[in-house]
Amino acid sequence: MYNLLTGLRVVEGASFIAGPSCGLHLAQMGAEVIRFDAIGGGPDFHRWPLAPGSDASLYWEGLNKGKKSIAIDLASPEGRELAVAIATAPGDTAGLFLTNYPLTGFLSHEALKTKRADIISVRVMGWADGKPALDYTVNAAVGVPLMTGPIDDDRPVNHVLPAWDLLGGAYAAFAMTSALLRRRMTGAGAEIRIPLADLAATSLSHMGSVAEVLASGDRPRMGNDLFGAFGRDFLCGDGKRVIVVAITPRQWSGLVETLGLAVDITALEAELGTLFARDEAARFNHRARLFPLFEAAFAKRSVAELQPAFDAGGVTWGEYQTLRQAVTTDTRLFTANPVFQTVTHPSGLTYPAAGPAATLAGEPRAPLAIAPRLGQHTDEVLASVLGLDSGAIARLHDKQLVA
Amino acid sequence: MYNLLTGLRVVEGASFIAGPSCGLHLAQMGAEVIRFDAIGGGPDFHRWPLAPGSDASLYWEGLNKGKKSIAIDLASPEGRELAVAIATAPGDTAGLFLTNYPLTGFLSHEALKTKRADIISVRVMGWADGKPALDYTVNAAVGVPLMTGPIDDDRPVNHVLPAWDLLGGAYAAFAMTSALLRRRMTGAGAEIRIPLADLAATSLSHMGSVAEVLASGDRPRMGNDLFGAFGRDFLCGDGKRVIVVAITPRQWSGLVETLGLAVDITALEAELGTLFARDEAARFNHRARLFPLFEAAFAKRSVAELQPAFDAGGVTWGEYQTLRQAVTTDTRLFTANPVFQTVTHPSGLTYPAAGPAATLAGEPRAPLAIAPRLGQHTDEVLASVLGLDSGAIARLHDKQLVA
Repeated sequence: MYNLLTGLRVVEGASFIAGPSCGLHLAQMGAEVIRFDAIGGGPDFHRWPLAPGSDASLYWEGLNKGKKSIAIDLASPEGRELAVAIATAPGDTAGLFLTNYPLTGFLSHEALKTKRADIISVRVMGWADGKPALDYTVNAAVGVPLMTGPIDDDRPVNHVLPAWDLLGGAYAAFAMTSALLRRRMTGAGAEIRIPLADLAATSLSHMGSVAEVLASGDRPRMGNDLFGAFGRDFLCGDGKRVIVVAITPRQWSGLVETLGLAVDITALEAELGTLFARDEAARFNHRARLFPLFEAAFAKRSVAELQPAFDAGGVTWGEYQTLRQAVTTDTRLFTANPVFQTVTHPSGLTYPAAGPAATLAGEPRAPLAIAPRLGQHTDEVLASVLGLDSGAIARLHDKQLVA
Repeated sequence: MYNLLTGLRVVEGASFIAGPSCGLHLAQMGAEVIRFDAIGGGPDFHRWPLAPGSDASLYWEGLNKGKKSIAIDLASPEGRELAVAIATAPGDTAGLFLTNYPLTGFLSHEALKTKRADIISVRVMGWADGKPALDYTVNAAVGVPLMTGPIDDDRPVNHVLPAWDLLGGAYAAFAMTSALLRRRMTGAGAEIRIPLADLAATSLSHMGSVAEVLASGDRPRMGNDLFGAFGRDFLCGDGKRVIVVAITPRQWSGLVETLGLAVDITALEAELGTLFARDEAARFNHRARLFPLFEAAFAKRSVAELQPAFDAGGVTWGEYQTLRQAVTTDTRLFTANPVFQTVTHPSGLTYPAAGPAATLAGEPRAPLAIAPRLGQHTDEVLASVLGLDSGAIARLHDKQLVA
């Protein structure tokens, strides 16, 4: 945890990945993030993966680290009023609401605005019109699963990584802080809507893919080959697989030299009338000629042999690892990565979990804050945000409006 | 474009996707983003996809929309001084530098800090120690390609979508605005490092996957099946493929009812002693029994039949489309999406391109700003940022330090 956002209060009413990961990023940069949930938990409270032999969600406790939790009866009008009051509480450092609740209803921007005119609401959505969509359905709609996977198989390949959700979380955090910068200059709030569908459509536009298909049609599926330069997976002599990428001239030269392929490549260049080091496109266009040379070179070598040579030669490469291999053996990613701290989580399990992906050089990382138990901060939030005294809080419990 | 960041100036020295997409997000929220490049362009200036019959990069002009461009001889000491002077120019709204240059060297944070003590630098990197890594090599290291793809095939499946790069761009934009919020409170700058490797490691931690593999080992590859609930691709009677996901009870009930499967599901529930609507995990655990029912139901229907029923029933679903299909026919994603505007780009091609993924309700989207020509704003930046007069600027041109 770092202190970039210390002093801010964000209220989160959100489930699944995009919204909660936004709140997580904000919390891990120092904001007080108060998450409200229905009593008993929201729709993601028991989402898999679970702790073995338990219904404690490793997913929920991963995405809600460092937040405060208040549990409210959100089905009742009085409970809903409480949630709205918390989201719209006064103060220059508050009035920041993050949600994936529907556009209309008791947590609509219009409803919140009647309580606090300068509220900033950030709403992660499916489609812009409010219709439901998830990462996986959006991905299918923009064509990524049809571009992904082996060339000799035309079935769509869904991604396992919910990339649009993750992108949505980070982009929502950017939108929230940006809107706060404006509010501090002008006093104006903002209603910000971030549909996953628009994240996907804009991303494919930004990378040139929309222009590409309009100009040239769909790009054929090309398996693991990198588009427009040199890159692919190769099988080494020890049975391990590596990925190697050469986009810049230096990456290419380092690779060719390290594998002892300079003579073969020069001969091929003479035959084809090209210079691969100068022309990344030639490396792609002639990949059917290049790949056999590389396949043979990798087949003769083990990862243990390649590692020091590749690292010395500045080659951009990596071994394919399973996640478990990486988590249990990879010092840079996990086992000796200062981003991770081993703590005991609400599930009762003790395991390493991550702070912010960013490192602020020269600034200490505060101890990792774990996820709350559901309702752990109910009384504290009612007192500190709404100013309720212990009698008023007790009455809310008696009426089962909070837990 | 919106005005959340109007008045800010960010200097960008970055190539490929993560850094430039960060600058793009900042520019599309109103910041003045000045990008410097080597004369003739950086390593991504001709990155594919290209405009047909041209070396104009659709990728570069997609990622650099709305920025200003200055071209500098970055190999010479005087040119490097110019880049540093632009990055460290004074002012409360400036001193924001975005880069993927190496940790050490003329654009290191230490070097910039000697010119401006409160500089905020955000550096997108490969590994935290400064070693090179790309989206694709990082992805191989964290196991995603081994989890992705058909069950009957154990080859790794690289993603086509550079998810870590995209996430890095949005997260870097969040880090930049967060650091500015702190600087405005405390006066302190920040050196922020965002390694793609740490983005991948932290994301897998946040979603519970790191805890999962430590507790239960690697998750087996499961093709297109959604983990822990109900979701998969299905082939319809018209030969089209759809993806359907049911995580919440409501999504499940809507799906079962719409497909007329209530009787079959009830029979299966009785046999298995479970209630699928109440237990998302049961939908996953018994998917081998459920899938044949759904396969048969989809095989009897066309997408045209399913669409109105699914939309009325609140089913979360979508058709697999190619990107070209989506771009040319999908009104919600592309052809009638107000996020897109059709403009003529520096390549000379006219095509729709995207503004911000976020929509600020009730606020107008300014006209889409296109990418600059390389060096288009060289003289303007030298005058406005460094205060050089026309004689001084002419001398820089004469010495070929700028173009």
